[in-house]
Amino acid sequence: MRYLLFVICCWLIVGLQAQQVHNHAFTRVVRFPNIPGYVSVKCDFHIHTVFSDGSVWPDIRVEEALKDSLDMISLTEHLEYQPHIKDIPHPDRNRSFEVGAQAAKPYGLTLVNGSEITRSMPPGHNNAIFIKDANKLLMDDPIAVFKEANQQGAFVFWNHSNWIAQQRDGISKLTDMHRQLIGDKLLHGIEVVNDLTYSAEALQIALDNNLTIMGTSDIHGLVDWQYGIADGGHRPLTLVFATDKSETSVKEALFAGRTAVWYNNLLIGREMYLVPLIQASLSVVKANYQGISSVVDVDIKNTTGVDFILVNQSPYSLHTNDDVVIVKAYDTTRIEVKTLEQLENFNLTFKVMNGIVAPKTHPNIDLNVTVKK
Amino acid sequence: MRYLLFVICCWLIVGLQAQQVHNHAFTRVVRFPNIPGYVSVKCDFHIHTVFSDGSVWPDIRVEEALKDSLDMISLTEHLEYQPHIKDIPHPDRNRSFEVGAQAAKPYGLTLVNGSEITRSMPPGHNNAIFIKDANKLLMDDPIAVFKEANQQGAFVFWNHSNWIAQQRDGISKLTDMHRQLIGDKLLHGIEVVNDLTYSAEALQIALDNNLTIMGTSDIHGLVDWQYGIADGGHRPLTLVFATDKSETSVKEALFAGRTAVWYNNLLIGREMYLVPLIQASLSVVKANYQGISSVVDVDIKNTTGVDFILVNQSPYSLHTNDDVVIVKAYDTTRIEVKTLEQLENFNLTFKVMNGIVAPKTHPNIDLNVTVKK
Amino acid sequence: MRYLLFVICCWLIVGLQAQQVHNHAFTRVVRFPNIPGYVSVKCDFHIHTVFSDGSVWPDIRVEEALKDSLDMISLTEHLEYQPHIKDIPHPDRNRSFEVGAQAAKPYGLTLVNGSEITRSMPPGHNNAIFIKDANKLLMDDPIAVFKEANQQGAFVFWNHSNWIAQQRDGISKLTDMHRQLIGDKLLHGIEVVNDLTYSAEALQIALDNNLTIMGTSDIHGLVDWQYGIADGGHRPLTLVFATDKSETSVKEALFAGRTAVWYNNLLIGREMYLVPLIQASLSVVKANYQGISSVVDVDIKNTTGVDFILVNQSPYSLHTNDDVVIVKAYDTTRIEVKTLEQLENFNLTFKVMNGIVAPKTHPNIDLNVTVKK
Amino acid sequence: MRYLLFVICCWLIVGLQAQQVHNHAFTRVVRFPNIPGYVSVKCDFHIHTVFSDGSVWPDIRVEEALKDSLDMISLTEHLEYQPHIKDIPHPDRNRSFEVGAQAAKPYGLTLVNGSEITRSMPPGHNNAIFIKDANKLLMDDPIAVFKEANQQGAFVFWNHSNWIAQQRDGISKLTDMHRQLIGDKLLHGIEVVNDLTYSAEALQIALDNNLTIMGTSDIHGLVDWQYGIADGGHRPLTLVFATDKSETSVKEALFAGRTAVWYNNLLIGREMYLVPLIQASLSVVKANYQGISSVVDVDIKNTTGVDFILVNQSPYSLHTNDDVVIVKAYDTTRIEVKTLEQLENFNLTFKVMNGIVAPKTHPNIDLNVTVKK
Repeated sequence: MRYLLFVICCWLIVGLQAQQVHNHAFTRVVRFPNIPGYVSVKCDFHIHTVFSDGSVWPDIRVEEALKDSLDMISLTEHLEYQPHIKDIPHPDRNRSFEVGAQAAKPYGLTLVNGSEITRSMPPGHNNAIFIKDANKLLMDDPIAVFKEANQQGAFVFWNHSNWIAQQRDGISKLTDMHRQLIGDKLLHGIEVVNDLTYSAEALQIALDNNLTIMGTSDIHGLVDWQYGIADGGHRPLTLVFATDKSETSVKEALFAGRTAVWYNNLLIGREMYLVPLIQASLSVVKANYQGISSVVDVDIKNTTGVDFILVNQSPYSLHTNDDVVIVKAYDTTRIEVKTLEQLENFNLTFKVMNGIVAPKTHPNIDLNVTVKK
Repeated sequence: MRYLLFVICCWLIVGLQAQQVHNHAFTRVVRFPNIPGYVSVKCDFHIHTVFSDGSVWPDIRVEEALKDSLDMISLTEHLEYQPHIKDIPHPDRNRSFEVGAQAAKPYGLTLVNGSEITRSMPPGHNNAIFIKDANKLLMDDPIAVFKEANQQGAFVFWNHSNWIAQQRDGISKLTDMHRQLIGDKLLHGIEVVNDLTYSAEALQIALDNNLTIMGTSDIHGLVDWQYGIADGGHRPLTLVFATDKSETSVKEALFAGRTAVWYNNLLIGREMYLVPLIQASLSVVKANYQGISSVVDVDIKNTTGVDFILVNQSPYSLHTNDDVVIVKAYDTTRIEVKTLEQLENFNLTFKVMNGIVAPKTHPNIDLNVTVKK
Repeated sequence: MRYLLFVICCWLIVGLQAQQVHNHAFTRVVRFPNIPGYVSVKCDFHIHTVFSDGSVWPDIRVEEALKDSLDMISLTEHLEYQPHIKDIPHPDRNRSFEVGAQAAKPYGLTLVNGSEITRSMPPGHNNAIFIKDANKLLMDDPIAVFKEANQQGAFVFWNHSNWIAQQRDGISKLTDMHRQLIGDKLLHGIEVVNDLTYSAEALQIALDNNLTIMGTSDIHGLVDWQYGIADGGHRPLTLVFATDKSETSVKEALFAGRTAVWYNNLLIGREMYLVPLIQASLSVVKANYQGISSVVDVDIKNTTGVDFILVNQSPYSLHTNDDVVIVKAYDTTRIEVKTLEQLENFNLTFKVMNGIVAPKTHPNIDLNVTVKK
Repeated sequence: MRYLLFVICCWLIVGLQAQQVHNHAFTRVVRFPNIPGYVSVKCDFHIHTVFSDGSVWPDIRVEEALKDSLDMISLTEHLEYQPHIKDIPHPDRNRSFEVGAQAAKPYGLTLVNGSEITRSMPPGHNNAIFIKDANKLLMDDPIAVFKEANQQGAFVFWNHSNWIAQQRDGISKLTDMHRQLIGDKLLHGIEVVNDLTYSAEALQIALDNNLTIMGTSDIHGLVDWQYGIADGGHRPLTLVFATDKSETSVKEALFAGRTAVWYNNLLIGREMYLVPLIQASLSVVKANYQGISSVVDVDIKNTTGVDFILVNQSPYSLHTNDDVVIVKAYDTTRIEVKTLEQLENFNLTFKVMNGIVAPKTHPNIDLNVTVKK
């Protein structure tokens, strides 16, 4: 009995402290739950430093990633575009990775070696990550570079296919060269989100061609400035659903297409991964009928930094909302459900308007409610 | 050409400074635009003071209304429920109105005389406003009270038909007595929103029976506490679309059913009034193509305290959003539209998810965009 | 045992919910530590309701006090000034107390019976608290009222002696009548703070005549509005240093002059109570030398809502400040002290600029620092 | 030309979006008034980039300075300490200045060439600014470097004389070599503030030896992180009181010792410059007697980002404060003064506790009050 008492006290105290975490105007820390069978690994695989056309030394990229609580990044310097070469005439294109990896060593952050293959269209810009030697990628023929990257075991994805400097209408479109690269399994993913932009067309290309859905910052300046961190903003990132946080597992997951992207307030991904992610993010923490009425208070807790915009699909009407329910980031929201009679257990289905499984297509999630006696 | 360059630079710098204007933490002041043909009159017609079961003197109700920038209120004391009668044994049921009107006199706030007819179901609680003498409403027969109120020219509406104390399942339902009162034109409106609750069923009853859609605070304690004013909350209110702000005009508009309700982040009303209200709230203040691309920056300004949740219904895809666009209260939001070629003028249609024209039914609005040369 | 378990759970859950109140940028909860030998009882002994010239029912005063985490209040209606008497013609002047006490009963808040004796100068307005029957104080002769109040065992204090309506220059001055009342031990305290004003002269009168130092809100409208609660403001209050929180103990402490006043950011009181209060409010929670240097990081924790303005009186200079150190409310502030050599233990003396022990006179406090090995 | 236009537009749009980060409740913009006879030039003369041991490219330093609204900076790379030399093997030590000056060109920001002479004690680290050629400063003999810098017309100041790595007790002390350098007019200033530290002893050395008082950031990482910009912090800076904002004038003013330092909430400087600065920062914008009383409302406006902590030295007591008055940054504060009779004009003298003219020594300022009739 004493032991039980002790356990309950501990549990309540832990709960108490968990509550105190929310006492910030905002938290920069990024939190996402794992999904059944996989851990959610927070990654940004498109980053620049002074070693190509970025404005900071690799140690700042490491610090930014730690502040954003990322698990894995890649410093993907342009191979061909080297505006600082006069001052930084490094002959070794792996140097940025080496310097960054050194800075990251004392922390739990993993750097993987990567490069940006920088060409006019087609094939435009593409990132090769998990490479072994960036220097070997310095060659003219575009197809040859893809082959060399793949030779090294790289995961390769197409960057900002919607970039107006290369695609005047901003509409991502596959070229024959891209079709060939995909057909030959030399190109494996596509950025649906790059920096401040999203491409519905790139998402459709990913779905139609079985490409992995990617979202990256492509940061050149400072993350704090570019994404308004002090105002509650965040960089775009790719959640990779891997068996563990190792390089091997993340790479396997990328090739298998197990990703979702967090961009502004959107979660973008294949339905089979996005639905479990959102279901793990939201949970019913309390449900009580109001006295003898058949109106039940249901408290939905959101453990992420996403403001969920839900639309009620259940047959029940709500006592405090029409059909739209907002469940704010890191907060618990109460809805009151009119179930017509007192039930022990019932299901609530919501369409998630800020979840994107295809252009203009939003997934449904189910929240199971068990009423407290 | 140089001159053009200079002009563009200047213009961009001016835009930059315009952006810095939005530095508000929050404003309690409630602002809504007028709609074509009518002024939008901000009203709360369900309020209590110490003269029935409220906890403040009428002067506090006046101050609260002024802080909330309301135009018209009514202190609708319960006729039959008088818990403070031992201390406030006023024989005159118009006394609350008189004291309140005196306090409001120096300001632009109008008080109209009103009372709450307080009965068990049916007909439950009903408010009669624009009455001449509350004392004459003190009688037993419920139908007789409605007749007397109507005799006085009152506008009468059914309160909190979803109240679980009188309707255990929270589902508003018309009784035969209500049908009779409506048929005899003795009952003219229905609260779709009361205090912290909303009733989809009451909205349907309003639409089916041509009743005026009402939303009220029914405040007994303090507005600041009940609606979390310091956290950005607001009391529910009824916008009345009247030819001017006079009592006569507002009363005419109420009988004509020209209202909308603001409750939490919802705007609820008949489509014919809600659509013009939202269209007047949002405007395109700037539209420029990004260089020679066919991606156009469109700045949408929101002059209200409502966060609009818009869903893109146009054929164009967006460069920074999938289909959902949030236009925050008192802010200007930029969207980037991919129009495929540079257009001089085009239309954007959005479904407004926080606009309610019938249960689970959201109106479309059109924003016309003219591009600046 | 089960019962104990239940009690502990309830207590933890209540604690948990109390914690959730703090999820604002600011916290309204008022916290002060006890001082050696006494508990610090938070009191406001000058408050009005609709039963004299205030604008709220007593239940709102109870709710305000609970939100401000007060321990004891008194509703001190004007005996002679009754502007609402037409509507509230109560013959019993104890009625406000009775209604308020009823509302306070379920909570830990104590109401004591009190009245404001409302006269022109002299003797101006005076509050009698801990009275037995307010009705018996209704008499013309001012000295007689003081005698009757004292007969009932009341603690009596002079209100707003700096009130420009009764004292055109705002300079509190003793009259012969006041000297007589003090000499006859009929007047025991004086407000040094009333509502939004402070009187240095009243403080001097208190010190010269051995009167108890009082600070009160004299609230008529809403505490939230008058003191800008949402912007981090607070009502003035009197801390009474009593042996426990009972009425008997608080009354004893008032007669013994054991008080301090919190007003804006000032703490005002006799040095013998103010110094222990401030010393209990601030504590050194960590002290470590920076490597092999003789500069020591000293972390000072402030457990109150007061921003302390300290001036270094020690022989050591600081590595991060000149002589002024601000220790913010509910925060821990690090100073770095240059002790010339590494010491195991040393003393820091500060003058507390926002502590007032006499007009323009600030107390010194000592913080003992023990360095962690 | 079209292409150039497009590039500039894109770049301006990107700049515009970066700017939108500043929409905070607080403003990062630093404002100080001019003083009679001089403009107040905002300078930071101790900054590092990747060209010595900093972590950013010079363009970030330019952007930071623009965001902080500085007028003049110097990138003072270590001559002798070059940890990135393997990657940045630049033979020309003026390179950081050249790259930075290029980035600053389009804006109103002036870069002056400077270098940090990096030695063990004595003479420790010293900055030479307004140099002509950094390469010529690369020599072993410390005295010879000072001579060469002076030969080039440089202004030279001693850095962080309180640095515990070179001065274990943190107490700044002159060595014979420093005395010689000062005597030979080769050393002209001393940092009283460096990064997060202040040295009362360095201030005394400046006053005793007629050295110019300097305050610098010595930033290596990011200004936003190091000084908590999002929480309202700011980098230390030197205000130079010059005849205009040109390099020539600023250099003349530095040699003439016309400076003040802003560090945390402190303003540090010679009394002859600090008093006019504070007097220009504060002004009485309104003064009215309260009715027929002799209590006058005085509104003091503060046009700077400094919270002034004032102590009343006038013979008048205050109606709302004891002697301490806080005048918050960018705010107007009302005090109520008891002048005993209605005056047309009077003087208020305040000691400024956060103004430092010598260690633990605070200046007095006078505010003249003219009452509105």
